[in-house]
Amino acid sequence: MSVVDLARFMEDLATQSGAAILPFFRAHFGLDDKSHGTDHAFDPVTEADRAAEVVMRRMIQDRFPCHGILGEEFGAERTDAECVWVLDPIDGTRAFISGLPTWGTLIGLTHHGAAVRGLMHQPYLQERFLGDGKTASVRGPKGERPLHTRRCDALSGAILSTTDPRLFAEGQEAERYRSVEGSVRMSRYGADCYAYCMLAAGQIDLVVEAGLKPYDIVALIPIVEGAGGVVTAWDGGPATGGGRIVAAGSPRLHEAALKRLNP
Amino acid sequence: MSVVDLARFMEDLATQSGAAILPFFRAHFGLDDKSHGTDHAFDPVTEADRAAEVVMRRMIQDRFPCHGILGEEFGAERTDAECVWVLDPIDGTRAFISGLPTWGTLIGLTHHGAAVRGLMHQPYLQERFLGDGKTASVRGPKGERPLHTRRCDALSGAILSTTDPRLFAEGQEAERYRSVEGSVRMSRYGADCYAYCMLAAGQIDLVVEAGLKPYDIVALIPIVEGAGGVVTAWDGGPATGGGRIVAAGSPRLHEAALKRLNP
Repeated sequence: MSVVDLARFMEDLATQSGAAILPFFRAHFGLDDKSHGTDHAFDPVTEADRAAEVVMRRMIQDRFPCHGILGEEFGAERTDAECVWVLDPIDGTRAFISGLPTWGTLIGLTHHGAAVRGLMHQPYLQERFLGDGKTASVRGPKGERPLHTRRCDALSGAILSTTDPRLFAEGQEAERYRSVEGSVRMSRYGADCYAYCMLAAGQIDLVVEAGLKPYDIVALIPIVEGAGGVVTAWDGGPATGGGRIVAAGSPRLHEAALKRLNP
Repeated sequence: MSVVDLARFMEDLATQSGAAILPFFRAHFGLDDKSHGTDHAFDPVTEADRAAEVVMRRMIQDRFPCHGILGEEFGAERTDAECVWVLDPIDGTRAFISGLPTWGTLIGLTHHGAAVRGLMHQPYLQERFLGDGKTASVRGPKGERPLHTRRCDALSGAILSTTDPRLFAEGQEAERYRSVEGSVRMSRYGADCYAYCMLAAGQIDLVVEAGLKPYDIVALIPIVEGAGGVVTAWDGGPATGGGRIVAAGSPRLHEAALKRLNP
Protein backbone atom coordinates (compact mmCIF):
# COMPACT_ATOMS: atom_id res chain seq x y z
CA MET A 1 0.00 0.00 0.00
CA SER A 2 1.33 3.38 -0.98
CA VAL A 3 1.68 6.32 1.35
CA VAL A 4 -1.00 8.11 -0.64
CA ASP A 5 -3.42 5.20 -0.19
CA LEU A 6 -2.67 5.12 3.51
CA ALA A 7 -3.34 8.85 3.85
CA ARG A 8 -6.59 8.42 1.94
CA PHE A 9 -7.64 5.53 4.16
CA MET A 10 -7.05 7.63 7.27
CA GLU A 11 -9.17 10.38 5.76
CA ASP A 12 -11.92 7.81 5.16
CA LEU A 13 -11.72 6.73 8.79
CA ALA A 14 -12.15 10.38 9.78
CA THR A 15 -15.07 10.92 7.42
CA GLN A 16 -16.94 7.81 8.55
CA SER A 17 -16.32 8.28 12.25
CA GLY A 18 -17.35 11.93 11.97
CA ALA A 19 -20.59 10.91 10.32
CA ALA A 20 -21.25 8.49 13.18
CA ILE A 21 -20.50 11.07 15.90
CA LEU A 22 -21.97 14.31 14.65
CA PRO A 23 -25.68 13.51 15.06
CA PHE A 24 -25.04 13.07 18.80
CA PHE A 25 -23.27 16.39 19.32
CA ARG A 26 -25.58 18.88 21.07
CA ALA A 27 -28.45 16.43 20.75
CA HIS A 28 -30.19 15.10 23.81
CA PHE A 29 -28.55 11.80 24.51
CA GLY A 30 -28.12 9.36 27.36
CA LEU A 31 -24.86 8.92 29.18
CA ASP A 32 -23.32 5.90 30.79
CA ASP A 33 -20.96 6.50 33.64
CA LYS A 34 -17.98 4.15 33.63
CA SER A 35 -16.95 5.20 37.11
CA HIS A 36 -20.30 4.62 38.83
CA GLY A 37 -20.54 8.01 40.41
CA THR A 38 -17.06 8.65 41.79
CA ASP A 39 -16.65 12.28 41.07
CA HIS A 40 -13.35 13.35 39.56
CA ALA A 41 -12.89 10.07 37.70
CA PHE A 42 -16.20 10.65 35.92
CA ASP A 43 -15.69 9.50 32.34
CA PRO A 44 -18.89 9.50 30.31
CA VAL A 45 -19.25 7.08 27.45
CA THR A 46 -21.56 8.23 24.73
CA GLU A 47 -23.28 6.28 22.09
CA ALA A 48 -21.31 8.42 19.66
CA ASP A 49 -18.02 7.16 21.06
CA ARG A 50 -19.03 3.54 20.58
CA ALA A 51 -20.66 4.00 17.18
CA ALA A 52 -17.56 5.73 15.81
CA GLU A 53 -15.14 3.13 17.13
CA VAL A 54 -17.24 0.28 15.73
CA VAL A 55 -17.18 1.95 12.30
CA MET A 56 -13.41 2.49 12.37
CA ARG A 57 -12.63 -1.01 13.65
CA ARG A 58 -14.70 -2.58 10.89
CA MET A 59 -12.98 -0.51 8.22
CA ILE A 60 -9.53 -1.43 9.55
CA GLN A 61 -10.39 -5.13 9.92
CA ASP A 62 -11.69 -5.22 6.34
CA ARG A 63 -8.73 -3.44 4.82
CA PHE A 64 -5.84 -4.52 7.05
CA PRO A 65 -6.79 -7.80 8.71
CA CYS A 66 -3.26 -8.27 10.06
CA HIS A 67 -2.98 -4.86 11.70
CA GLY A 68 -3.51 -4.44 15.42
CA ILE A 69 -6.04 -2.07 16.97
CA LEU A 70 -6.03 -0.30 20.32
CA GLY A 71 -9.20 1.70 20.94
CA GLU A 72 -10.63 3.54 23.91
CA GLU A 73 -13.97 1.80 23.93
CA PHE A 74 -13.32 -1.77 22.81
CA GLY A 75 -9.77 -2.46 23.94
CA ALA A 76 -6.80 -4.12 22.26
CA GLU A 77 -6.48 -6.73 19.53
CA ARG A 78 -3.23 -7.97 17.92
CA THR A 79 -1.25 -5.11 19.47
CA ASP A 80 1.92 -7.16 18.86
CA ALA A 81 1.43 -6.62 15.09
CA GLU A 82 3.93 -4.58 13.08
CA CYS A 83 1.29 -1.89 12.45
CA VAL A 84 -1.20 -0.90 15.15
CA TRP A 85 -4.03 1.61 14.87
CA VAL A 86 -4.58 3.65 18.00
CA LEU A 87 -8.06 5.18 18.20
CA ASP A 88 -9.91 7.57 20.46
CA PRO A 89 -13.26 8.34 18.85
CA ILE A 90 -13.98 11.30 21.14
CA ASP A 91 -11.03 12.76 22.97
CA GLY A 92 -12.48 15.43 25.23
CA THR A 93 -15.71 13.70 26.23
CA ARG A 94 -16.44 16.37 28.86
CA ALA A 95 -16.21 19.09 26.26
CA PHE A 96 -18.46 17.04 24.00
CA ILE A 97 -21.23 16.57 26.54
CA SER A 98 -20.96 20.24 27.52
CA GLY A 99 -21.59 21.23 23.90
CA LEU A 100 -18.12 22.75 23.44
CA PRO A 101 -16.42 22.11 20.08
CA THR A 102 -12.93 21.40 21.49
CA TRP A 103 -13.11 17.60 21.36
CA GLY A 104 -11.70 15.56 18.50
CA THR A 105 -11.38 12.11 16.97
CA LEU A 106 -7.84 10.73 17.24
CA ILE A 107 -6.58 8.28 14.64
CA GLY A 108 -2.97 7.19 15.07
CA LEU A 109 -0.79 4.54 13.47
CA THR A 110 2.27 2.97 15.03
CA HIS A 111 4.94 0.98 13.18
CA HIS A 112 7.09 -1.26 15.38
CA GLY A 113 5.82 0.79 18.32
CA ALA A 114 6.71 4.23 16.95
CA ALA A 115 3.94 6.73 16.17
CA VAL A 116 4.33 7.36 12.45
CA ARG A 117 1.03 8.93 11.37
CA GLY A 118 -1.66 10.89 13.11
CA LEU A 119 -4.92 12.60 12.33
CA MET A 120 -7.09 14.71 14.62
CA HIS A 121 -10.56 15.34 13.23
CA GLN A 122 -12.99 17.95 14.57
CA PRO A 123 -16.08 17.19 12.48
CA TYR A 124 -18.25 20.02 13.88
CA LEU A 125 -15.62 22.58 12.80
CA GLN A 126 -14.69 20.50 9.73
CA GLU A 127 -11.03 20.69 10.71
CA ARG A 128 -8.45 17.96 10.14
CA PHE A 129 -4.96 18.14 11.62
CA LEU A 130 -2.55 15.71 9.94
CA GLY A 131 1.04 14.72 10.57
CA ASP A 132 3.62 12.11 9.65
CA GLY A 133 6.41 13.19 11.99
CA LYS A 134 8.20 15.13 9.25
CA THR A 135 5.46 17.49 8.12
CA ALA A 136 2.07 18.53 9.46
CA SER A 137 -0.87 20.43 8.08
CA VAL A 138 -4.41 21.50 8.86
CA ARG A 139 -7.30 21.37 6.44
CA GLY A 140 -10.50 23.29 7.09
CA PRO A 141 -13.36 24.95 5.27
CA LYS A 142 -10.95 27.59 4.00
CA GLY A 143 -8.32 25.26 2.58
CA GLU A 144 -5.12 23.58 3.73
CA ARG A 145 -2.04 25.10 5.29
CA PRO A 146 1.17 23.72 6.78
CA LEU A 147 1.56 23.69 10.55
CA HIS A 148 4.64 25.12 12.24
CA THR A 149 5.24 25.53 15.93
CA ARG A 150 6.19 28.97 17.25
CA ARG A 151 9.74 29.70 18.31
CA CYS A 152 9.49 30.33 22.02
CA ASP A 153 12.53 29.08 23.92
CA ALA A 154 11.90 30.42 27.43
CA LEU A 155 9.21 29.37 29.92
CA SER A 156 8.68 33.03 30.84
CA GLY A 157 7.32 33.70 27.34
CA ALA A 158 5.27 30.53 26.99
CA ILE A 159 1.53 29.87 26.83
CA LEU A 160 0.82 26.62 28.68
CA SER A 161 -2.26 24.44 28.36
CA THR A 162 -3.42 21.51 30.41
CA THR A 163 -6.78 19.76 30.28
CA ASP A 164 -7.49 19.88 34.02
CA PRO A 165 -5.10 20.68 36.90
CA ARG A 166 -6.97 18.10 39.01
CA LEU A 167 -5.55 15.33 36.81
CA PHE A 168 -2.16 15.64 38.55
CA ALA A 169 -1.82 13.42 41.62
CA GLU A 170 -1.49 15.58 44.75
CA GLY A 171 2.07 15.58 46.07
CA GLN A 172 5.17 15.47 43.90
CA GLU A 173 3.33 15.25 40.57
CA ALA A 174 1.08 18.27 41.20
CA GLU A 175 3.99 20.24 42.71
CA ARG A 176 6.12 19.69 39.63
CA TYR A 177 3.30 20.69 37.35
CA ARG A 178 2.74 23.85 39.42
CA SER A 179 6.44 24.65 39.18
CA VAL A 180 6.01 24.82 35.40
CA GLU A 181 2.69 26.66 35.63
CA GLY A 182 4.24 29.25 37.94
CA SER A 183 7.03 30.02 35.48
CA VAL A 184 5.08 30.60 32.27
CA ARG A 185 3.52 33.73 30.83
CA MET A 186 -0.03 32.38 30.75
CA SER A 187 -1.78 29.08 31.37
CA ARG A 188 -5.13 27.78 30.29
CA TYR A 189 -7.27 24.78 31.16
CA GLY A 190 -9.67 22.59 29.28
CA ALA A 191 -8.51 21.88 25.73
CA ASP A 192 -7.76 18.14 25.48
CA CYS A 193 -6.42 17.11 22.03
CA TYR A 194 -7.14 20.56 20.67
CA ALA A 195 -4.27 21.97 22.74
CA TYR A 196 -1.69 19.78 20.96
CA CYS A 197 -3.04 20.87 17.58
CA MET A 198 -2.86 24.53 18.61
CA LEU A 199 0.71 23.86 19.74
CA ALA A 200 1.43 22.48 16.27
CA ALA A 201 -0.22 25.60 14.81
CA GLY A 202 2.04 27.94 16.79
CA GLN A 203 -0.72 29.30 19.07
CA ILE A 204 0.29 27.49 22.27
CA ASP A 205 3.88 26.73 23.34
CA LEU A 206 3.61 24.01 25.96
CA VAL A 207 1.22 21.24 27.02
CA VAL A 208 1.82 19.35 30.28
CA GLU A 209 -0.47 16.51 31.33
CA ALA A 210 -0.62 13.33 33.40
CA GLY A 211 -2.69 10.18 33.44
CA LEU A 212 -3.00 9.92 29.66
CA LYS A 213 -3.71 6.65 27.90
CA PRO A 214 -1.81 5.72 24.73
CA TYR A 215 -4.92 6.50 22.64
CA ASP A 216 -4.98 10.04 24.10
CA ILE A 217 -1.56 10.87 22.66
CA VAL A 218 -0.33 8.51 19.89
CA ALA A 219 -2.18 10.27 17.03
CA LEU A 220 -0.94 13.66 18.22
CA ILE A 221 2.78 12.78 18.26
CA PRO A 222 3.31 12.81 14.45
CA ILE A 223 1.34 16.08 14.24
CA VAL A 224 3.38 17.86 16.92
CA GLU A 225 6.69 16.45 15.65
CA GLY A 226 5.77 17.14 12.03
CA ALA A 227 5.19 20.79 12.93
CA GLY A 228 8.62 21.10 14.57
CA GLY A 229 7.67 20.36 18.17
CA VAL A 230 8.86 17.81 20.71
CA VAL A 231 6.65 15.47 22.73
CA THR A 232 7.89 13.00 25.33
CA ALA A 233 7.08 11.56 28.72
CA TRP A 234 8.16 13.72 31.69
CA ASP A 235 11.28 11.55 32.03
CA GLY A 236 12.25 12.28 28.42
CA GLY A 237 11.27 8.82 27.18
CA PRO A 238 8.82 8.07 24.37
CA ALA A 239 5.31 9.52 24.68
CA THR A 240 3.62 6.58 22.95
CA GLY A 241 2.87 4.84 26.25
CA GLY A 242 0.84 7.76 27.63
CA GLY A 243 1.10 8.66 31.32
CA ARG A 244 2.83 11.95 32.10
CA ILE A 245 3.32 13.91 28.89
CA VAL A 246 5.08 17.15 27.98
CA ALA A 247 4.84 18.70 24.52
CA ALA A 248 6.70 21.83 23.49
CA GLY A 249 6.94 23.93 20.37
CA SER A 250 10.74 24.08 20.48
CA PRO A 251 13.48 21.73 21.74
CA ARG A 252 14.88 24.38 24.11
CA LEU A 253 11.50 25.03 25.69
CA HIS A 254 11.02 21.28 26.06
CA GLU A 255 14.37 21.04 27.82
CA ALA A 256 13.45 23.92 30.16
CA ALA A 257 10.16 22.23 31.05
CA LEU A 258 11.88 18.86 31.65
CA LYS A 259 14.22 20.53 34.16
CA ARG A 260 11.25 21.70 36.23
CA LEU A 261 9.46 18.37 35.91
CA ASN A 262 12.58 16.47 37.08
CA PRO A 263 14.20 18.75 39.66
CA MET B 1 -37.51 52.37 16.87
CA SER B 2 -39.29 49.05 16.57
CA VAL B 3 -38.18 45.87 18.22
CA VAL B 4 -37.46 44.43 14.80
CA ASP B 5 -35.20 47.36 13.91
CA LEU B 6 -33.40 47.00 17.23
CA ALA B 7 -32.82 43.29 16.65
CA ARG B 8 -31.54 44.04 13.17
CA PHE B 9 -29.18 46.71 14.49
CA MET B 10 -27.74 44.26 17.01
CA GLU B 11 -27.18 41.78 14.20
CA ASP B 12 -25.36 44.50 12.25
CA LEU B 13 -23.14 45.17 15.27
CA ALA B 14 -22.33 41.45 15.35
CA THR B 15 -21.62 41.28 11.63
CA GLN B 16 -19.35 44.33 11.61
CA SER B 17 -17.47 43.43 14.79
CA GLY B 18 -17.01 39.88 13.53
CA ALA B 19 -15.52 41.20 10.29
CA ALA B 20 -13.10 43.31 12.33
CA ILE B 21 -12.04 40.44 14.60
CA LEU B 22 -11.83 37.40 12.37
CA PRO B 23 -8.70 38.32 10.37
CA PHE B 24 -6.78 38.32 13.68
CA PHE B 25 -7.94 34.91 14.85
CA ARG B 26 -5.14 32.34 14.46
CA ALA B 27 -3.07 34.91 12.61
CA HIS B 28 0.28 35.97 13.95
CA PHE B 29 -0.39 39.09 15.90
CA GLY B 30 1.24 41.18 18.56
CA LEU B 31 -0.06 41.30 22.10
CA ASP B 32 -0.06 44.07 24.62
CA ASP B 33 -0.05 43.11 28.26
CA LYS B 34 -2.22 45.34 30.41
CA SER B 35 -0.84 43.89 33.60
CA HIS B 36 2.87 44.37 32.82
CA GLY B 37 3.90 40.83 33.52
CA THR B 38 2.07 39.95 36.75
CA ASP B 39 1.13 36.41 36.10
CA HIS B 40 -2.41 35.41 36.95
CA ALA B 41 -3.81 38.86 36.17
CA PHE B 42 -2.46 38.56 32.63
CA ASP B 43 -5.09 40.07 30.36
CA PRO B 44 -3.95 40.38 26.76
CA VAL B 45 -5.38 43.13 24.61
CA THR B 46 -5.42 42.36 20.94
CA GLU B 47 -5.74 44.66 18.02
CA ALA B 48 -8.91 42.72 17.22
CA ASP B 49 -10.48 43.68 20.53
CA ARG B 50 -9.87 47.37 19.91
CA ALA B 51 -10.80 47.34 16.23
CA ALA B 52 -14.13 45.66 16.98
CA GLU B 53 -15.04 48.00 19.81
CA VAL B 54 -14.20 51.06 17.70
CA VAL B 55 -16.51 49.77 14.94
CA MET B 56 -19.38 49.07 17.34
CA ARG B 57 -19.02 52.40 19.21
CA ARG B 58 -19.13 54.33 15.94
CA MET B 59 -22.24 52.49 14.79
CA ILE B 60 -24.01 53.14 18.11
CA GLN B 61 -22.96 56.80 18.23
CA ASP B 62 -24.24 57.32 14.68
CA ARG B 63 -27.55 55.60 15.22
CA PHE B 64 -28.31 56.35 18.89
CA PRO B 65 -26.40 59.48 19.88
CA CYS B 66 -28.21 59.64 23.24
CA HIS B 67 -27.51 56.08 24.30
CA GLY B 68 -24.75 55.26 26.75
CA ILE B 69 -21.90 52.83 26.05
CA LEU B 70 -19.85 50.71 28.41
CA GLY B 71 -17.10 48.80 26.66
CA GLU B 72 -14.17 46.68 27.79
CA GLU B 73 -11.52 48.55 25.86
CA PHE B 74 -12.58 52.21 25.80
CA GLY B 75 -14.56 52.59 29.01
CA ALA B 76 -17.84 54.34 29.80
CA GLU B 77 -19.74 57.21 28.20
CA ARG B 78 -23.22 58.48 29.20
CA THR B 79 -23.87 55.42 31.35
CA ASP B 80 -26.60 57.40 33.14
CA ALA B 81 -28.66 57.28 29.91
CA GLU B 82 -31.94 55.36 29.74
CA CYS B 83 -30.44 52.85 27.30
CA VAL B 84 -26.84 51.68 27.65
CA TRP B 85 -24.95 49.31 25.34
CA VAL B 86 -22.60 46.98 27.16
CA LEU B 87 -19.87 45.57 24.92
CA ASP B 88 -17.09 43.02 25.20
CA PRO B 89 -15.59 42.58 21.75
CA ILE B 90 -13.68 39.42 22.73
CA ASP B 91 -14.84 37.66 25.86
CA GLY B 92 -12.37 34.83 26.35
CA THR B 93 -9.19 36.57 25.25
CA ARG B 94 -7.05 33.67 26.51
CA ALA B 95 -9.01 31.21 24.37
CA PHE B 96 -8.65 33.59 21.43
CA ILE B 97 -4.88 33.89 21.63
CA SER B 98 -4.60 30.12 22.18
CA GLY B 99 -6.47 29.54 18.91
CA LEU B 100 -9.49 27.94 20.61
CA PRO B 101 -12.92 28.87 19.22
CA THR B 102 -14.66 29.29 22.61
CA TRP B 103 -14.46 33.09 22.79
CA GLY B 104 -17.30 35.38 21.73
CA THR B 105 -18.38 38.95 21.12
CA LEU B 106 -20.86 40.15 23.75
CA ILE B 107 -23.41 42.80 22.83
CA GLY B 108 -25.85 43.70 25.59
CA LEU B 109 -28.44 46.42 26.05
CA THR B 110 -29.73 47.72 29.38
CA HIS B 111 -32.87 49.78 29.89
CA HIS B 112 -33.04 51.68 33.18
CA GLY B 113 -30.27 49.39 34.38
CA ALA B 114 -31.95 46.08 33.54
CA ALA B 115 -30.42 43.78 30.90
CA VAL B 116 -33.13 43.53 28.25
CA ARG B 117 -31.36 42.22 25.16
CA GLY B 118 -28.26 40.18 24.54
CA LEU B 119 -26.32 38.69 21.67
CA MET B 120 -23.28 36.45 21.82
CA HIS B 121 -21.52 36.10 18.47
CA GLN B 122 -18.92 33.45 17.66
CA PRO B 123 -17.86 34.54 14.18
CA TYR B 124 -15.41 31.67 13.56
CA LEU B 125 -18.22 29.14 14.13
CA GLN B 126 -20.81 31.48 12.62
CA GLU B 127 -23.00 31.06 15.69
CA ARG B 128 -25.24 33.73 17.19
CA PHE B 129 -26.97 33.26 20.53
CA LEU B 130 -29.79 35.76 21.04
CA GLY B 131 -32.10 36.56 23.94
CA ASP B 132 -34.56 39.16 25.17
CA GLY B 133 -35.26 37.72 28.62
CA LYS B 134 -38.46 36.00 27.47
CA THR B 135 -37.17 33.89 24.60
CA ALA B 136 -33.75 32.85 23.34
CA SER B 137 -32.46 31.21 20.21
CA VAL B 138 -29.29 30.20 18.41
CA ARG B 139 -28.61 30.70 14.73
CA GLY B 140 -25.82 28.84 13.01
CA PRO B 141 -24.84 27.52 9.61
CA LYS B 142 -27.63 24.91 9.89
CA GLY B 143 -30.46 27.31 10.73
CA GLU B 144 -32.11 28.72 13.84
CA ARG B 145 -33.54 26.93 16.84
CA PRO B 146 -34.98 28.01 20.17
CA LEU B 147 -32.86 27.61 23.29
CA HIS B 148 -34.19 25.91 26.40
CA THR B 149 -32.31 25.08 29.55
CA ARG B 150 -32.33 21.50 30.80
CA ARG B 151 -34.40 20.49 33.79
CA CYS B 152 -31.85 19.51 36.39
CA ASP B 153 -32.91 20.44 39.91
CA ALA B 154 -30.22 18.75 42.04
CA LEU B 155 -26.54 19.63 42.32
CA SER B 156 -25.69 15.92 42.30
CA GLY B 157 -26.91 15.69 38.70
CA ALA B 158 -25.45 18.95 37.45
CA ILE B 159 -22.66 19.76 35.01
CA LEU B 160 -20.79 22.82 36.30
CA SER B 161 -18.55 25.13 34.31
CA THR B 162 -16.22 27.88 35.44
CA THR B 163 -13.66 29.74 33.38
CA ASP B 164 -10.74 29.26 35.76
CA PRO B 165 -10.75 28.07 39.39
CA ARG B 166 -7.86 30.47 40.08
CA LEU B 167 -10.24 33.41 39.60
CA PHE B 168 -11.74 32.79 43.07
CA ALA B 169 -9.95 34.66 45.85
CA GLU B 170 -8.27 32.16 48.21
CA GLY B 171 -10.16 31.88 51.48
CA GLN B 172 -13.93 32.11 51.83
CA GLU B 173 -14.64 32.77 48.15
CA ALA B 174 -12.64 29.78 46.88
CA GLU B 175 -13.99 27.54 49.67
CA ARG B 176 -17.58 28.34 48.77
CA TYR B 177 -16.90 27.70 45.11
CA ARG B 178 -15.27 24.37 45.98
CA SER B 179 -18.29 23.45 48.09
CA VAL B 180 -20.40 23.70 44.93
CA GLU B 181 -17.77 21.97 42.78
CA GLY B 182 -17.59 19.10 45.25
CA SER B 183 -21.33 18.49 45.09
CA VAL B 184 -21.92 18.32 41.33
CA ARG B 185 -21.76 15.43 38.89
CA MET B 186 -19.04 16.92 36.73
CA SER B 187 -17.18 20.19 36.43
CA ARG B 188 -15.23 21.72 33.60
CA TYR B 189 -12.91 24.68 33.21
CA GLY B 190 -12.20 27.16 30.46
CA ALA B 191 -15.34 28.19 28.60
CA ASP B 192 -15.94 31.92 29.28
CA CYS B 193 -19.14 33.25 27.62
CA TYR B 194 -19.59 29.99 25.77
CA ALA B 195 -20.52 28.26 29.02
CA TYR B 196 -23.55 30.53 29.56
CA CYS B 197 -24.72 29.86 26.00
CA MET B 198 -24.34 26.10 26.51
CA LEU B 199 -26.34 26.50 29.73
CA ALA B 200 -29.05 28.22 27.70
CA ALA B 201 -28.84 25.34 25.20
CA GLY B 202 -29.41 22.72 27.92
CA GLN B 203 -25.89 21.23 27.72
CA ILE B 204 -24.54 22.64 31.00
CA ASP B 205 -26.56 23.16 34.20
CA LEU B 206 -24.56 25.58 36.28
CA VAL B 207 -21.95 28.33 35.86
CA VAL B 208 -20.24 29.82 38.93
CA GLU B 209 -17.71 32.63 38.55
CA ALA B 210 -16.14 35.57 40.38
CA GLY B 211 -14.39 38.78 39.41
CA LEU B 212 -16.58 39.45 36.37
CA LYS B 213 -17.05 42.91 34.93
CA PRO B 214 -20.49 44.10 33.82
CA TYR B 215 -19.48 43.67 30.17
CA ASP B 216 -18.63 40.00 30.86
CA ILE B 217 -22.21 39.19 31.87
CA VAL B 218 -24.84 41.78 30.79
CA ALA B 219 -25.32 40.41 27.26
CA LEU B 220 -25.64 36.87 28.61
CA ILE B 221 -28.44 37.60 31.11
CA PRO B 222 -31.28 37.95 28.54
CA ILE B 223 -30.03 34.81 26.77
CA VAL B 224 -29.95 32.67 29.93
CA GLU B 225 -33.26 34.08 31.24
CA GLY B 226 -34.90 33.82 27.82
CA ALA B 227 -34.00 30.12 27.74
CA GLY B 228 -35.59 29.50 31.15
CA GLY B 229 -32.52 29.89 33.35
CA VAL B 230 -31.70 32.10 36.32
CA VAL B 231 -28.64 34.30 36.69
CA THR B 232 -27.82 36.44 39.73
CA ALA B 233 -24.98 37.52 41.95
CA TRP B 234 -23.98 35.04 44.67
CA ASP B 235 -26.08 37.05 47.15
CA GLY B 236 -29.16 36.65 44.94
CA GLY B 237 -29.07 40.28 43.75
CA PRO B 238 -28.97 41.39 40.12
CA ALA B 239 -26.13 40.06 37.96
CA THR B 240 -25.82 43.22 35.87
CA GLY B 241 -23.06 44.64 38.08
CA GLY B 242 -20.76 41.66 37.51
CA GLY B 243 -18.62 40.38 40.39
CA ARG B 244 -19.57 36.95 41.74
CA ILE B 245 -22.07 35.33 39.41
CA VAL B 246 -24.13 32.14 39.51
CA ALA B 247 -26.24 30.99 36.56
CA ALA B 248 -28.44 27.89 36.63
CA GLY B 249 -30.70 26.14 34.18
CA SER B 250 -33.56 25.84 36.69
CA PRO B 251 -34.76 27.94 39.65
CA ARG B 252 -34.41 25.01 42.08
CA LEU B 253 -30.84 24.30 41.04
CA HIS B 254 -30.08 28.01 41.39
CA GLU B 255 -31.51 27.94 44.91
CA ALA B 256 -29.43 24.87 45.80
CA ALA B 257 -26.27 26.59 44.55
CA LEU B 258 -27.06 29.80 46.47
CA LYS B 259 -27.31 27.78 49.69
CA ARG B 260 -23.77 26.51 49.24
CA LEU B 261 -22.46 29.92 48.19
CA ASN B 262 -24.05 31.57 51.29
CA PRO B 263 -23.73 28.97 54.05
